[in-house]
This record gives sequence, C-alpha cells and structure tokens, in this order.
Amino acid sequence: MSSPTRFAACIEYNGRNYNGWQKQSHAPSIQNELESAVSQVANESVKITASGRTDTGVHATGQVIHFDVNTRRTRQELARGANRYLPDDICILWAIPVDAEFHARFSALERRYRYVILNRSIRPACLHGSVTWHRPILDEVRMQSSAMNLLGEHDFSAFRASGCQSKIPVRTILDIQVGRQDEWVWMDISANGFLQHMVRNIMGVLMRVGEGVEPPEWSRHVLETRDRKQGGITSPAEGLYFASVSYDAKFKLPATPPACRFW
Amino acid sequence: MSSPTRFAACIEYNGRNYNGWQKQSHAPSIQNELESAVSQVANESVKITASGRTDTGVHATGQVIHFDVNTRRTRQELARGANRYLPDDICILWAIPVDAEFHARFSALERRYRYVILNRSIRPACLHGSVTWHRPILDEVRMQSSAMNLLGEHDFSAFRASGCQSKIPVRTILDIQVGRQDEWVWMDISANGFLQHMVRNIMGVLMRVGEGVEPPEWSRHVLETRDRKQGGITSPAEGLYFASVSYDAKFKLPATPPACRFW
Repeated sequence: MSSPTRFAACIEYNGRNYNGWQKQSHAPSIQNELESAVSQVANESVKITASGRTDTGVHATGQVIHFDVNTRRTRQELARGANRYLPDDICILWAIPVDAEFHARFSALERRYRYVILNRSIRPACLHGSVTWHRPILDEVRMQSSAMNLLGEHDFSAFRASGCQSKIPVRTILDIQVGRQDEWVWMDISANGFLQHMVRNIMGVLMRVGEGVEPPEWSRHVLETRDRKQGGITSPAEGLYFASVSYDAKFKLPATPPACRFW
Repeated sequence: MSSPTRFAACIEYNGRNYNGWQKQSHAPSIQNELESAVSQVANESVKITASGRTDTGVHATGQVIHFDVNTRRTRQELARGANRYLPDDICILWAIPVDAEFHARFSALERRYRYVILNRSIRPACLHGSVTWHRPILDEVRMQSSAMNLLGEHDFSAFRASGCQSKIPVRTILDIQVGRQDEWVWMDISANGFLQHMVRNIMGVLMRVGEGVEPPEWSRHVLETRDRKQGGITSPAEGLYFASVSYDAKFKLPATPPACRFW
C-alpha cells in the first residue's frame, strides 16, 4: 500500500446555517459537511484540517484546508465530486496535491478577513444573514484613523474572547483598511494570525469610534489595558468573511478568488 | 369617516423563498407577506398593488407599491411597524403618503432591472440563490454589442413568455449596459415596461452570444422574427433584481437606493 496523498483545497461557504467550522455531534458544521462529502468521493474516512476555525455564522470566500487520501483521485475528481455531495452553501474552489509537510494551519503565514456592514436605517433583506446591519451612521475616516493604532505586533488580550485557547496573545497586524461605498462600510484586515473573536472585537471598538461615542485614540487605550472588559461589544458574526490565507510560494498553491464585495 | 390615505412605499426582497410577487392561496408570495404585515399595522385589511409582478425566485432592491389605509398612521409607524412583522428577507425601505391619483403600476414611467452572473467554473456558495451561475466564459463586449440591437421601440414578441397576458407586445428599451468585474458579469436594462420573462429571455440570447455560440447580430434576427421559439433559453430567475421605478416628479417620491452589486 502506497503512502497517502496530501491535498490542499480552497473553500467557500455561507456560514448562516452552520454552528461554525468545527465538527459537533448535534449541530451542523462546515467541517462535518466537508468530511462527509470528501469521504464519499475518496471512499474512505477523511479528516480535514482548516487554516483557521470560524465561529457560528461566519462566512468564508478563501478558507484553506488539507486532508490525506489513500485512494487515487485526481484534483478534478476530488473537487467536482465533493461539490456534488456538498450542500448549496459550501463549495470547493480548487483542490491540489501538495507536499506532505504542508499544513493548512501551521504553514499559514498570513490570514485576511473582510468585515461588511450595511450602514442604513432599514435592515437588509436581500443579503440578510450575509452582512452586518448597523443603523447609526459610521464615520469611516475616524475608524481608519483608530485602526492604525492596532498595526504591528501587540498583545491583543483586550480583543480576545474569554474562552480563547491560544497560549500566546501576541499577534502582528500587517494591514487594516476601512472604507465606505454608498451604504456599505467595510474593513479588510490581515495578520499573521488571529485570536478567537479578534476581528469582531476590533470591529466592535471601531464601530463605537465610527459612531462618535469614543475618540479614535480609544483603540490604543483598550489595547494597552490588555483587559477584554475594557473593549467594546463583539460585532455580529454575519458580516465576517474569512477571505484568504498565504503560504510559502514553494507549496505552489493556486490564487484565492477576490472576497465578496457588495458595493 | 374621512377618505383613505394612499401610501407609496419602496420594497426590498430576496425572492429565493417565494413563489414570486403575486398572492397565491397555497404558496408563499411577497404580496401575501406585505399585505399581512401592513394590515396588522393598519389594523384593517389592506390590498397592495406593485409596479410590476416578479416571478418565482426574482429579487427586488427597489420595487414600488401603493396601498390605501383608513386608519391614521405616520409614514414611520407604517414602515417600522411593517418591518417588525415582515420576515427577514423582505423589508420596506420607505413609505410616504401620496396623491390619490398615484398608481404604482400605471403611473410608472420607466423600470430598471439588474441581472447578475457569477461566471466561473465552480458554483456559488456564499451567494447561492442570489446570483446566476454560468460556467462557460462570457465575452461581455460581444454581449454589449448584441444588446445594442434591442435599443428603442420594438415588438418584443420573441422575448415574451408564452403565457404573457399583456395586450400589446411593444416596449421601448431606453438603455442596456453589460459589463464585467472579475468573475462577475452584469446587465443593467431600463425600459418603459417589460413583458413577462422579457429580461430573462433577453439575457438568454445575450449569454449565447457571449459564449460565442451565436453572432452579435443574432439578437436582431430573433427580435425580427417576433417568434418566441427562435429565441434562446430563459435565463434563471435567481440572478434577476428589480432595481427601480421612475415616476413623475410631481409625486415627490424619495430616491431608490442603489441596486445590489457583488463586484
């Protein structure tokens, strides 16, 4: 029997109907659906590892996973076959054989998220569940200014969930861009990694700054306290998209498609 | 008892879970949901008229309706109240008292639709049900060129559904724009009015032109036959958005928000 082949794959999903990435016995999860579909195609029980777990209701346009299969399958057989078994709100964008040392989580160099807000007086209908609704008008210039305080390497304890299991609270934010187009306010954020709820807690602080409730300097103050209780609310999951992951070029992964835009 | 007050309102909905606009006894419809919600707020049975009926699965970002209420209600009470009773995928964007001669359908001067295609090899997941998926690559420049043949006043019999109940098959197309952004191909089309399935039948022809199966002149040929059997397929409902309606400025209606964009 030959050694198994490791595959990397890029995944898109709408998280609205799932209790997040991680497999659970009594609730629908993205991991459950993917393992079930890929196992059917591979005709063996397949375990899947993601570059990052997403919470209940969070979406992805460029989540990356890896898994090992013993059965011989081409990349097309795997992707097309699994897409037939997957529900309408999950798909595999590409799958490719990779070196056995590739690990979706531990090999990741940079992760990018996008957060999308519909900033108007009436709740969304067409995109309900796929964007965050916020009624008070947000000043995106103030938000961008406040976001700059978080750039670089910091202890992000003030922005992590109380249940976060990461041993080290230090992360490096590489870029944050906040912008507006018509009624849409969005944030693109990239870092070497994120703590649990970190993007949503950052957005919670930036939204209070954008409303004018707190000054732009507040983000620095919250950061320096290293105390989650000093931060703002955790912004809703429904506006959050896991956009892409970067790996060393030696793994020769295909490009990730651009993240969802609604503006 | 005073005479009833006529209200105009602008509506957004995701049509995925409805059998179209029109009320039916055994299937969910947008009209049903709206009449039920507005009737609860007005505390009387309210009948609603739309500027145009949409088919099963078709969405709207700027549908306009009118209705009469005898109970005294402010525009805010009506819109906010109805939005509380409406399901997540339907909302009232604004409601305003109008002159009794206003009629959502008969006063309409121009209607605009947007058609949105995700043009890639893998089906959509995040936006499944909200966009049309088309796998063969479309040439949007050919499609635009072909679309120009339909501009102006014509007999659109070749582009109307066999069950279309309109007495006159003549309509005037005022503008058609086809464009691409990344994996998205879209069409914006405006006319004084549309026959049943007219936008989807036009898109069906343009998609065959965009695939290279037919030359750009094919749209003129199909138009001139006035024969529905000469046309292409009816493109799917899920990519179609009723974007806006124009009325005489004397009615002083608020502006319609921009239509959904995903690119």
